[in-house]
Amino acid sequence: MKISSKLLNIVKQNKSFIIAGHINPEGDAIGSALALALGLKKIGKKDICVLSRDGVPETLQFLPSAKLIKKRPPDKKYDVLFIVDCNTPERTGFRELKAGNTVIIDHHIPPADAGKSEFYRTLSAAVIDPGAAATGMLVYKFLSALKVPIDKDIATNLYTAILVDTGGFRYSNTSPESLMMACHLVGAGARPWDITKEIFESIPYKSMKLLGLSMATLDKKDNIAWITATREMFEKTGTTAEDSEDFVDFPRKVKGAEAAVFFREDEKGVFKLSLRSKGKVDVQKIAEGFGGGGHFAAAGCRIKGTLREVQRKVLTAVRKAIKEAT
Amino acid sequence: MKISSKLLNIVKQNKSFIIAGHINPEGDAIGSALALALGLKKIGKKDICVLSRDGVPETLQFLPSAKLIKKRPPDKKYDVLFIVDCNTPERTGFRELKAGNTVIIDHHIPPADAGKSEFYRTLSAAVIDPGAAATGMLVYKFLSALKVPIDKDIATNLYTAILVDTGGFRYSNTSPESLMMACHLVGAGARPWDITKEIFESIPYKSMKLLGLSMATLDKKDNIAWITATREMFEKTGTTAEDSEDFVDFPRKVKGAEAAVFFREDEKGVFKLSLRSKGKVDVQKIAEGFGGGGHFAAAGCRIKGTLREVQRKVLTAVRKAIKEAT
Repeated sequence: MKISSKLLNIVKQNKSFIIAGHINPEGDAIGSALALALGLKKIGKKDICVLSRDGVPETLQFLPSAKLIKKRPPDKKYDVLFIVDCNTPERTGFRELKAGNTVIIDHHIPPADAGKSEFYRTLSAAVIDPGAAATGMLVYKFLSALKVPIDKDIATNLYTAILVDTGGFRYSNTSPESLMMACHLVGAGARPWDITKEIFESIPYKSMKLLGLSMATLDKKDNIAWITATREMFEKTGTTAEDSEDFVDFPRKVKGAEAAVFFREDEKGVFKLSLRSKGKVDVQKIAEGFGGGGHFAAAGCRIKGTLREVQRKVLTAVRKAIKEAT
Repeated sequence: MKISSKLLNIVKQNKSFIIAGHINPEGDAIGSALALALGLKKIGKKDICVLSRDGVPETLQFLPSAKLIKKRPPDKKYDVLFIVDCNTPERTGFRELKAGNTVIIDHHIPPADAGKSEFYRTLSAAVIDPGAAATGMLVYKFLSALKVPIDKDIATNLYTAILVDTGGFRYSNTSPESLMMACHLVGAGARPWDITKEIFESIPYKSMKLLGLSMATLDKKDNIAWITATREMFEKTGTTAEDSEDFVDFPRKVKGAEAAVFFREDEKGVFKLSLRSKGKVDVQKIAEGFGGGGHFAAAGCRIKGTLREVQRKVLTAVRKAIKEAT
């Protein structure tokens, strides 16, 4: 992925920059946006705004300069708009945001109709590489091309971005390049344990209590492992849906499970499902069968019915998919 | 850490090699020993034996060539004995094992009386670096010095060694060098997700059931979080103490916890405790106060009494230590 000289010139020739990640942001969106902002500052840019419509999740508030992030754009026009870790203005939550130049830095596959869309035709420049494990890796390359010296704060943001999107250097997208960058970022001051503590080891007590109750429902059959969180459990622990993020990782860890499901009761008779694959089953297809979506290894959907009905339907579909895949 | 030419010559001039890790082996011991054996094979050595007195734990049996490991040494004298990931013959479980040359490859601090001991005085060579995150890193350097081409099997063993001893690139020993080696090893064919699946995502179903029950006991007070596994839970799930390894990691993940404790009831009135620190409290000192031991951030001990008595004693000691440390 080469950074175009056109893009470098856009940075050099302009003064004001606004950076927007996506709605419901995670570590790659926030870390990439902040690293980009800090990098631009390093080379003398003074007028920079970082946007996140949904703010900064609590676990990411430790990120250097996280406090600078705004939920709404100031009422002025910026020279350059950077859209990071997503690829449409809609995904930023600021559909109307306009700037003199618009640049995408992202590792998602662009929309199928990108070639025809007005937005893509008027794009000033882009760094798009669906092969990159994290947008943070593309920001790192961009900053390197701009000859920004990577300091501890930038390194911490970029390391977090890569850490989150590789599942802590565990997923199959953990490439030699992502580890090489991680190496340089630790060399530049990022501290793996300090960051890990914030990202993976700062789970609210009530959320852990909920996990305990939910884990007690663990069941396994035909290479599928699943757990459930009922309304009663949420009420007993004073938690909300947010507190059960990543719970599906636990049934996934069960030996012999090819697929894992987390059944979350959102309201009486309505379940939100998270599906995970260990590499063989395409859970996206299963979720799509129930009107949901996602990726090959991680997907979700929403189904109405009693817990028993919903489990029967879903587990039947998953069983069928496993049979076909293995 | 330079590899001495004396050591390189020992390898070059000899024909038969026996390699021993430590008792109760984990990924660094087994991965390092196997990588070393495979490396020696690559440069034409044919007579190689890998020893592990306690065999290979189930989670490590996926390691390339794990099946070659023997529990007892053959009845013959080898030219060279390699002691890896430990630093005394006692720790290998083969106190009587003798060879023409003895070499240590290890990242632990040598015993305080090493200078005076007969064993250390007659050592042929050593690669000892307590600053290395894993013995696997030292084996990697050694194989590089021997100009061994690193293939997929060697890479998988070394990657596992480093992965395990850095807690999945999370602990503070995750240095730029460990990430750089990981980068090269993935480049040489190690597959992060395949290895992660075996190491971190193959937990027996019954062990996960036990975790659920134990997690339901989660409690937190004064920056200490703890869970308990009673005899009843072990019986209900058909599990043994082995199935509760790493359970202490869960209370450690609680936000705001400076220390975590896992109370494991081994027999009526006897508890095995695992203690973890998040970086400020020295849990080794606490464990030593109860006749146990360990490291600053991870220690253990055994205490007699009712659960209530044991918890009161230990939590009082931890509370005191946190107060002094923060």
